Amino acid sequence: MRADGRAIDELRPVTIERGWSDQAEGSALISCGRTKVLCTASFTNGVPRWMSGKGKGWVTAEYAMLPRSTNERMAREAVKGKIGGRTHEISRLVGRSLRAVVDMKALGENTIVIDCDVLQADGGTRTAAITGAYVALFDALEWGREQKFIGQKAQPLTDSVAAISVGIVKGVPMLDLAYTEDSSAQTDMNVVVTGRGSFVEVQGTAEGAPFDRAELNSLLDLALAGTVTLTELQNAALGR
Amino acid sequence: MRADGRAIDELRPVTIERGWSDQAEGSALISCGRTKVLCTASFTNGVPRWMSGKGKGWVTAEYAMLPRSTNERMAREAVKGKIGGRTHEISRLVGRSLRAVVDMKALGENTIVIDCDVLQADGGTRTAAITGAYVALFDALEWGREQKFIGQKAQPLTDSVAAISVGIVKGVPMLDLAYTEDSSAQTDMNVVVTGRGSFVEVQGTAEGAPFDRAELNSLLDLALAGTVTLTELQNAALGR
Amino acid sequence: MRADGRAIDELRPVTIERGWSDQAEGSALISCGRTKVLCTASFTNGVPRWMSGKGKGWVTAEYAMLPRSTNERMAREAVKGKIGGRTHEISRLVGRSLRAVVDMKALGENTIVIDCDVLQADGGTRTAAITGAYVALFDALEWGREQKFIGQKAQPLTDSVAAISVGIVKGVPMLDLAYTEDSSAQTDMNVVVTGRGSFVEVQGTAEGAPFDRAELNSLLDLALAGTVTLTELQNAALGR
Amino acid sequence: MRADGRAIDELRPVTIERGWSDQAEGSALISCGRTKVLCTASFTNGVPRWMSGKGKGWVTAEYAMLPRSTNERMAREAVKGKIGGRTHEISRLVGRSLRAVVDMKALGENTIVIDCDVLQADGGTRTAAITGAYVALFDALEWGREQKFIGQKAQPLTDSVAAISVGIVKGVPMLDLAYTEDSSAQTDMNVVVTGRGSFVEVQGTAEGAPFDRAELNSLLDLALAGTVTLTELQNAALGR
Amino acid sequence: MRADGRAIDELRPVTIERGWSDQAEGSALISCGRTKVLCTASFTNGVPRWMSGKGKGWVTAEYAMLPRSTNERMAREAVKGKIGGRTHEISRLVGRSLRAVVDMKALGENTIVIDCDVLQADGGTRTAAITGAYVALFDALEWGREQKFIGQKAQPLTDSVAAISVGIVKGVPMLDLAYTEDSSAQTDMNVVVTGRGSFVEVQGTAEGAPFDRAELNSLLDLALAGTVTLTELQNAALGR
Amino acid sequence: MRADGRAIDELRPVTIERGWSDQAEGSALISCGRTKVLCTASFTNGVPRWMSGKGKGWVTAEYAMLPRSTNERMAREAVKGKIGGRTHEISRLVGRSLRAVVDMKALGENTIVIDCDVLQADGGTRTAAITGAYVALFDALEWGREQKFIGQKAQPLTDSVAAISVGIVKGVPMLDLAYTEDSSAQTDMNVVVTGRGSFVEVQGTAEGAPFDRAELNSLLDLALAGTVTLTELQNAALGR
Repeated sequence: MRADGRAIDELRPVTIERGWSDQAEGSALISCGRTKVLCTASFTNGVPRWMSGKGKGWVTAEYAMLPRSTNERMAREAVKGKIGGRTHEISRLVGRSLRAVVDMKALGENTIVIDCDVLQADGGTRTAAITGAYVALFDALEWGREQKFIGQKAQPLTDSVAAISVGIVKGVPMLDLAYTEDSSAQTDMNVVVTGRGSFVEVQGTAEGAPFDRAELNSLLDLALAGTVTLTELQNAALGR
Repeated sequence: MRADGRAIDELRPVTIERGWSDQAEGSALISCGRTKVLCTASFTNGVPRWMSGKGKGWVTAEYAMLPRSTNERMAREAVKGKIGGRTHEISRLVGRSLRAVVDMKALGENTIVIDCDVLQADGGTRTAAITGAYVALFDALEWGREQKFIGQKAQPLTDSVAAISVGIVKGVPMLDLAYTEDSSAQTDMNVVVTGRGSFVEVQGTAEGAPFDRAELNSLLDLALAGTVTLTELQNAALGR
Repeated sequence: MRADGRAIDELRPVTIERGWSDQAEGSALISCGRTKVLCTASFTNGVPRWMSGKGKGWVTAEYAMLPRSTNERMAREAVKGKIGGRTHEISRLVGRSLRAVVDMKALGENTIVIDCDVLQADGGTRTAAITGAYVALFDALEWGREQKFIGQKAQPLTDSVAAISVGIVKGVPMLDLAYTEDSSAQTDMNVVVTGRGSFVEVQGTAEGAPFDRAELNSLLDLALAGTVTLTELQNAALGR
Repeated sequence: MRADGRAIDELRPVTIERGWSDQAEGSALISCGRTKVLCTASFTNGVPRWMSGKGKGWVTAEYAMLPRSTNERMAREAVKGKIGGRTHEISRLVGRSLRAVVDMKALGENTIVIDCDVLQADGGTRTAAITGAYVALFDALEWGREQKFIGQKAQPLTDSVAAISVGIVKGVPMLDLAYTEDSSAQTDMNVVVTGRGSFVEVQGTAEGAPFDRAELNSLLDLALAGTVTLTELQNAALGR
Repeated sequence: MRADGRAIDELRPVTIERGWSDQAEGSALISCGRTKVLCTASFTNGVPRWMSGKGKGWVTAEYAMLPRSTNERMAREAVKGKIGGRTHEISRLVGRSLRAVVDMKALGENTIVIDCDVLQADGGTRTAAITGAYVALFDALEWGREQKFIGQKAQPLTDSVAAISVGIVKGVPMLDLAYTEDSSAQTDMNVVVTGRGSFVEVQGTAEGAPFDRAELNSLLDLALAGTVTLTELQNAALGR
Repeated sequence: MRADGRAIDELRPVTIERGWSDQAEGSALISCGRTKVLCTASFTNGVPRWMSGKGKGWVTAEYAMLPRSTNERMAREAVKGKIGGRTHEISRLVGRSLRAVVDMKALGENTIVIDCDVLQADGGTRTAAITGAYVALFDALEWGREQKFIGQKAQPLTDSVAAISVGIVKGVPMLDLAYTEDSSAQTDMNVVVTGRGSFVEVQGTAEGAPFDRAELNSLLDLALAGTVTLTELQNAALGR
């Protein structure tokens, strides 16, 4: 039994508030248990100068945590004057994950910037960010279509994408680690999966003892099942 | 008549969600029309080394905007690697405003860091930050008292504090400017007032034509009336 | 009686050395008691790319202190690698104050950068900077006219501008605070006034006890009288 | 057939020059084809203040590329004044990979800093860095034992560790990608494996089309075979 | 004949205003023609922690230029967020030059920070800085002796120090280059000499054609003669 | 007798591995005793925008040390986020030294960036960098000629250039100081000399007692003899 009473293959309660922001072209506030991430997608017609003339668009992402999203207040990266390694790493992961389901030709010469700001953190912030960002991205693309920056027949999205963490805690593989589980896990894995069930990213790390192939397989089984549910929740939020 | 139908001496609808954060010792999500600011107060027992041994505490504040809180996405200050002048200026204003109602001796050797993060911006973010931060500060002090870091009889708060913007738009002094009003104002003033009605800060700036003493007086009248209402809303949120 | 024997409504001795610099288009070394600020105005024909084609000019300002302008040496901001909040705040104040008396259309597509470097500090550096910078600005505009970058009939200056600090020390409102007065003031106010007597900026801050409306009025009376004198000194320096 | 004539499951020629540096406590210059990485391990008796008194040591790593290690010169991160996301990500990966085979209790209160500087880059620099750094780490630990900073019977190393890249190029899974292969790969995976054959890290990324479970398994098979060979080469270099 | 009518072995007019600053323990405003440098020496009892307990003091220096000291305004290094190579180089030169005439044992555990801020620049700013800084240093040491931070019989100064630039312009070696001469010089040399006539620094650079040994000797002859005069002016300023 | 048995006018063993890098247009790994510096020259057709249209090229240089090139590990400048004064100073010296033998008109609108990375340091790294960089520069220019970016008859090199350190250790002038000699030298001098025997730079610094003219002359004699040998070694490496 887990601290919060969940089964080992059970997700925390997930809610996705689509269109949370009045300002952004697309947005979603996603909650996974106590983890809350505000995801916005900003659509700009045009691409940076070095990309122009190629008929292709660009999608990029930035991830950050509010200083008191965590149990102990963290110093702001803006105050420290530099971005930490973890922030960089996650921003890059979110960007790659979303680009994996975007056809840049169909997007045309448009730029989308995803911002994922963690308002409250209790484990799984990077995977919640990806899952929420997909919803924001979807709406920003619809906005671009309405504004006729994207052609009426173009299909920039080739699939949906969602992500979940899995890990081995006290020898037991489990789904969707909360912070206390994550910080005591021997192995921690983040898995990004498309709506059709293919992998975009598999990032497994032995924090304690190395893991063997059987354990890797158990973790992937859990992650694939979890992302099926997340895909359904994304579709429900999008009214599909 | 104003764009949103308000009278010239009318505040936008204000809501204060006390205790929004599960992590911080005190918190409030304040909304003033479309402006939304998440305020947290982080309590730490002890003070920085250079202050220790004096029997006094410290209160400081940081203000920031999410990149897509605004109509056009702004680059993150962490990414630019430096904090802009406006951010610095507002962080300092918020900190001074709260310190004005704290008795540092009664606080004892404890530190409170206020974070005001603008989730959505539509004018008046700095004054909303101060008004919301007072609620967060109140709860953080109560927490400190429960934890016995503050003496049972100590009264660190000497008063409450709230703030509002006023300005002259097309020759007419008005209360609580929304973004479109603020950006066309000739004169813009932020006023920070205690619950008992004294000034903590008066910051008036002629963005266009200079203002005379009669105009200054009209603006102060509006601001004093507006902060009376805000004080009532703070008390209501705090159940007093 | 004040420490230096002045009456409460008396300015310190003020001198303005116009044309102190051989290099700048306009310059003034202003002394207010022991406070000395070197103000230069650098005139550039043309505006930054993002402003061009609008037929308007731009005036901006930077303020800084030499490391040993103060009683204790301060670390250089260039060495620390970042500009502090106070510096930012004052640079912005100086820029806004001068822009308030410049007609950007009449200036035409020209840029003026004001530099105010505090050589010695004894209170009132920001207000001395504004008062001296006006003289430097005047001469830079004349230079621009001589060079025919500004039209012969254009009147970029709509008024003059000067500034002074006032404050409440031990319950007594007084004019032009020296450093020791400033550091023990309950309330500190900087007031920027045009030659015709309108306000450009009113920035009052309660460092100790909040202030009431009567006190605010006393401070404004002192400031308005003081800036009348400063305006006369500016005119004398400019030979008008 | 691959561009350089290798079989799909064939490593590039690998050489490990142990003790390349006269200055470091442990060092190795590893070449994998044209990729050359200088790895040093710096041993310091003692740990940072925040870790002291716990009887445990610390191992950390930094990765960097010389500006002309690549085909086009890259700007130096020191000149840009900040470290890029990729550099951070790899430094963290190298550090985690080595810590996975170190018993921090057995290391005692000693600190080891690994530096991996890429002198020439042709793909696989991060995995070469890990493989070479293990050899440098081994010698630095021996040095610590000789100096009696580590107990004579303590066994800080619990296993060896090596790493290799694998990927899917034009639909074909292959081992040890050179730069031209890597830049055209659909899926790219870095695998870190202990001498006993367990996983420390599995990082697979779909750069183009997402990958399925069968492809993941093929890549893991290749990686496990490749790291067996690398482990043998490490042992040979260490004379074991 | 030179542009300003000087002989090739003639210094520009030099004035040294000793005690220019009311704040610093020692100060001098030195003018060499149109070049003006404000030099202050800040005396602190005690040394940085890493030096304490050795019975020795420390002297360090920082050099900077005001943004409009030059004919074209330069961006502030504080605004750019980093210190340029030239500034670093000159700060180091000034510090070394002064340390060369200080007996750190006789200084005792005291720290002196020299600040040389160029108010107006017309060539020779680094050598003027050294020559003026010596006067400021002298007075700061006297101050330290009066305060009894330095022993009554200790002689921290082992000699005086002054500096001058020389160069080859259109094939002619000349003394004390003004800016227009310096920018067209083939060879430029800065020479730092003690009062007794020994070299502390000789820094010669061929900006155009390399120079031969005869030219080097001519330049050294000029510099040695020039620094004899500067030493006399320093002594006169110090009333010796 | 010196610690390593050399005569006072004897160089350490020097080797120059021309073409060490597969990536750069020109490269050399130079060893002077235990000092090893990797020098690369990167050739780019074209010049920065501000230089274009003048028919001239540009040569610039950057110098850096690997963190464990030294006996004690140094923090990386990229990690510290700023470049130190010494690094700046040496980068500028290397650039000036090479530009002294390049005819920028003959180079045409092409840019060469020299990188000198110290792999192992034992004194004399800056002079080794200059001596090695000349070889790299030579080959990069040949490459530019082969690519027809430089005219077939153009002679961008006007001479060769080499550098050596000399110093006074325990009163004795000596050639090519190793680290332990350098750190105890009273006077330290770096001399940059062309193949024809003229000076490009003479930088002598009294670290301890000032030096007189006779000592200066002895040091220059040693340096001129040493650079004759280095010039021969450069020619041998280049097969001339």
